[in-house]
Amino acid sequence: MDKAFASTPEPPYYAVIFSARRTEGDHGYEAMAKAMVDLALKQPGCLGAESTRGADGFGITVAYFTDEASIAAWKANDRHLTAQRLGQERWYSHYELRVAKVERAYSGPEGRGV
Amino acid sequence: MDKAFASTPEPPYYAVIFSARRTEGDHGYEAMAKAMVDLALKQPGCLGAESTRGADGFGITVAYFTDEASIAAWKANDRHLTAQRLGQERWYSHYELRVAKVERAYSGPEGRGV
Repeated sequence: MDKAFASTPEPPYYAVIFSARRTEGDHGYEAMAKAMVDLALKQPGCLGAESTRGADGFGITVAYFTDEASIAAWKANDRHLTAQRLGQERWYSHYELRVAKVERAYSGPEGRGV
Repeated sequence: MDKAFASTPEPPYYAVIFSARRTEGDHGYEAMAKAMVDLALKQPGCLGAESTRGADGFGITVAYFTDEASIAAWKANDRHLTAQRLGQERWYSHYELRVAKVERAYSGPEGRGV
């Protein structure tokens, strides 16, 4: 299995869609981003995450959770709160965060079709 | 406004989350991808789209729609059906497509906070 993909169960479950534009320079971002993904994946209720960023600094990360309570717990995690603060202060010129309930899912080309 | 971001209304609305690994080589992909984004944005009910791909060929596109009927109409669009077929045959080694209902949304750092 391609590890870039999250291996999620049958819906319903939740998706936290985070799209963000990075500021210039690293300023500790890459190390923290990796640490936060590792930490998120250890959270109860976290099903996986998918993340990518283009050369222009615009990126999308989608993290999947079993339920709203798991999202709330992750949001309130101490180390994550520090990362959120640094994200607001240093790393992102703009971001959008959307919490969505996944209702249907498909995969391919070998899967069930779109 | 940074044009990489979709300007979406207050929730609820729908997100179609498409994560995919590209095969090697272009094979007409870039031109079709651009045409499909342009076409999607003209569909009734399409609120916008966000898309990025890393150097490793893994990409995420999220398209936002007002409702399920708009998603169904876009799925059935003739030119989009052709693109879907070519995606399955040529462009993607694997993809995941998830349809989700956006329940809450935030923006920052200048916005309402996370």
